[in-house]
Amino acid sequence: MSLINDLVSIVGAEHVLEGEEAAPYLSDWRNRYKGRAQAVVRPANTQEVADVVKLCARYEVPMVTQGGNTGLCGGATPSNKGDAVLILMTRLNHILNVDTVNDTITVQAGCILQQVQEAAAKHERLFPLSLAAEGSCTIGGNLATNAGGTQVLRYGNARDLALGLEVVTPEGDILNGLKGLRKDNTGYDLRNLYIGSEGTLGIITAATLKLYPQPAAECTALVAFESLDDALYMLNYSRKGFASRLEGFELMSDYCLKIVNECFPEQSLPLSLDYPWYALIHIADSDSEEQAREIFHRVLEQALEDDIIQDAVLAESLQQAHDLWHLRESIPLAEAMVGQGIKNDISVPISRIAPFVDDTNTALQSWYPGVRHIIFGHLGDGNLHYNIGAPVGEEEGFLSKQEEAFKIVFDSVVDYDGSISAEHGIGQLKKDMLPDYKDEVEIAVMRKIKRALDPLGLMNPGKVIDSVDFDY
Amino acid sequence: MSLINDLVSIVGAEHVLEGEEAAPYLSDWRNRYKGRAQAVVRPANTQEVADVVKLCARYEVPMVTQGGNTGLCGGATPSNKGDAVLILMTRLNHILNVDTVNDTITVQAGCILQQVQEAAAKHERLFPLSLAAEGSCTIGGNLATNAGGTQVLRYGNARDLALGLEVVTPEGDILNGLKGLRKDNTGYDLRNLYIGSEGTLGIITAATLKLYPQPAAECTALVAFESLDDALYMLNYSRKGFASRLEGFELMSDYCLKIVNECFPEQSLPLSLDYPWYALIHIADSDSEEQAREIFHRVLEQALEDDIIQDAVLAESLQQAHDLWHLRESIPLAEAMVGQGIKNDISVPISRIAPFVDDTNTALQSWYPGVRHIIFGHLGDGNLHYNIGAPVGEEEGFLSKQEEAFKIVFDSVVDYDGSISAEHGIGQLKKDMLPDYKDEVEIAVMRKIKRALDPLGLMNPGKVIDSVDFDY
Repeated sequence: MSLINDLVSIVGAEHVLEGEEAAPYLSDWRNRYKGRAQAVVRPANTQEVADVVKLCARYEVPMVTQGGNTGLCGGATPSNKGDAVLILMTRLNHILNVDTVNDTITVQAGCILQQVQEAAAKHERLFPLSLAAEGSCTIGGNLATNAGGTQVLRYGNARDLALGLEVVTPEGDILNGLKGLRKDNTGYDLRNLYIGSEGTLGIITAATLKLYPQPAAECTALVAFESLDDALYMLNYSRKGFASRLEGFELMSDYCLKIVNECFPEQSLPLSLDYPWYALIHIADSDSEEQAREIFHRVLEQALEDDIIQDAVLAESLQQAHDLWHLRESIPLAEAMVGQGIKNDISVPISRIAPFVDDTNTALQSWYPGVRHIIFGHLGDGNLHYNIGAPVGEEEGFLSKQEEAFKIVFDSVVDYDGSISAEHGIGQLKKDMLPDYKDEVEIAVMRKIKRALDPLGLMNPGKVIDSVDFDY
Repeated sequence: MSLINDLVSIVGAEHVLEGEEAAPYLSDWRNRYKGRAQAVVRPANTQEVADVVKLCARYEVPMVTQGGNTGLCGGATPSNKGDAVLILMTRLNHILNVDTVNDTITVQAGCILQQVQEAAAKHERLFPLSLAAEGSCTIGGNLATNAGGTQVLRYGNARDLALGLEVVTPEGDILNGLKGLRKDNTGYDLRNLYIGSEGTLGIITAATLKLYPQPAAECTALVAFESLDDALYMLNYSRKGFASRLEGFELMSDYCLKIVNECFPEQSLPLSLDYPWYALIHIADSDSEEQAREIFHRVLEQALEDDIIQDAVLAESLQQAHDLWHLRESIPLAEAMVGQGIKNDISVPISRIAPFVDDTNTALQSWYPGVRHIIFGHLGDGNLHYNIGAPVGEEEGFLSKQEEAFKIVFDSVVDYDGSISAEHGIGQLKKDMLPDYKDEVEIAVMRKIKRALDPLGLMNPGKVIDSVDFDY
């Protein structure tokens, strides 16, 4: 029990959880992954994180870092071995600094994303990272997984919003990179190496993030297309017409809207469901509501005239805009209510989306006739949630076919130069598949880095990549 | 001579240069660094680069990669030992693909930056990287050094414009990452590791880059400030007022404009030189010239009214805008004509620029009374070219004091949480100083990565960081 005693001496007895107290942190929120741990520890600050890591390194005990536990790939759940210590970051929840001249905010890793957004808003600034879990995910987790969300088109992923990081290395050293610099060419870009590494190379304890001016006005429209090609044409049209005003371009198949309509009849659909594809287009303007609406009208009218879009409704009020977004946000819920499904989070070059969807739909239908296609996502980023529902009445055992479905979809993704995980990461879900779908030289370099920075393989083992390969 | 024979068998005799033919590539364009090499080779394509690297690795021969040879830190010049092979990338100069739906361009590393800009323009797209050497620097060099330039404020550094890379590793393997994906969370971000690594981890042979819509109109103004604080206030004001229209905010001290005026009297100054600080503000609008001018007028009038700026001239024509930019671009030339100088390329958080300049000026004056301060740069990025001229009449031997001057400036940079190299990189110029001015944990992690990816230390040795440290 000397590990536990030593942990207690670092963080205090009330912050070393075992048994029942530890249980909530040992499975993910969807209950897809369950693990065990020697203890869950809740350090209060960076120094305590470093001391815990040093201790675990000395005992050669694996470490799993957890923030809001909202991940979708099991990246924050320990293995079943029970040898790990789970480091919970939620007490590192302080906004350290807001600098309105430098337009930066420095926050501890355990801050909730919404807390960061609100701290920025209090200073009349925008922190643009926005995603469904923003009320409970932590910024540390967002950075560790390079989270995306709905405003990537304009502001980029979590990666693009981070100027500097503080990181505890696998040896328990503190790397102090919390500089709010927009330019720094003094050697290797370690910041981007830690971002997206899912806790396998070190623990992000704080970050300095970019802030933006708040927009003067926002505007949302729902539009209907005759084909996916037209949707892509409209995306290009929007990039040109709205330029940097364009913040979101969210594609939805007719089937997505149909199930939302069935499950939530109280949500009114402002367009008929006569077309196969729809998109929510969202813009923000720095000048005025009037200008935003005028430009939106102009672009939509031209698109109608050019037969790129078949129908359109421009939200007339904030409430209407909210209602339109609510349709989009209700898709995953409707999906779950309608039946079992296999989720994909893939990306391909935007120019190849239409043939990718055609080909992959066909391949899936010949594999399992009648599967339902639930396709929606961030078209502007080439990122589709290309989900597959069991055929009606054939729910039983469908999820056990997940690996077969993954193989069909991922083979197609690779044919189209895409990525098998656009925004959710690898975690434990896709770790074993990754080497089959990624450039082998890239895999070899990743492994060299993992081995160099974490030679004992203690940082979040069993996630992303193993320290050793079988040829080693 | 079997290395040379083997090189000839890969690239052909006419592309293995020795003696006189090799000489132009063995010193940098400013003639500050001179080196020697066994040969200069000019591979024709990625496979030939890989074959050359494999060969050099087999012979354990150091490799130095060179593009347009426009660097400022000696990063592309071999050492004096004469054991290296210099790999010249200029034959890899093909635009491989322009995808206007995906808004990407894929280019070989030896393409001249201007060639990339022009290929984009031919398709009515903007490739926004822009810097003084764009007529001769290569995109591979831009990526290897993470080049900045004048549009970073809006579009970011070279790093921010690259979606994927093809890289030849130190073993001569080809890493194929040329995917035009805007989202890909499948493991470690190797792309950003190679970008900015100055050829010390591998050789970038091609890249897929982001394209943007061409702006409908551009507008430039020259404004005068009573203080550096006012300039910073105006920057913030501009970020709010112009939002994403703001593309450049280039600071110049009165002394910079004075020497331009002395050296190039034919360039007319549209404002009096009665104020200590000036800035060029540049915006681009996606809608119309009319709108751009109207917004610019509105923001400038408000700033005058609020006493943030003292005077302003808005270019009335493209020629006038060009003339204003020409003033800015003439500063380095005027600087060279006026006398010997020590160049700095530093960044600090934007909010700390004013006290940094005050304190550092004072420290330099007490070190060497009468030194001239030539201060200009990309204020919007916190990046100053904080240059130091010999006092008038005291040219002799001033450059030999470079190390003393660096120490004063860099100590101050570190006090202000800044970077000793904002955009020019480390090369050989700052390699030995780097460990004194960068977080020691970061240095240790960098060294681990260098050692893991280039264990023989053959990739551009003597640049950025050594494979071993003295404690090793």
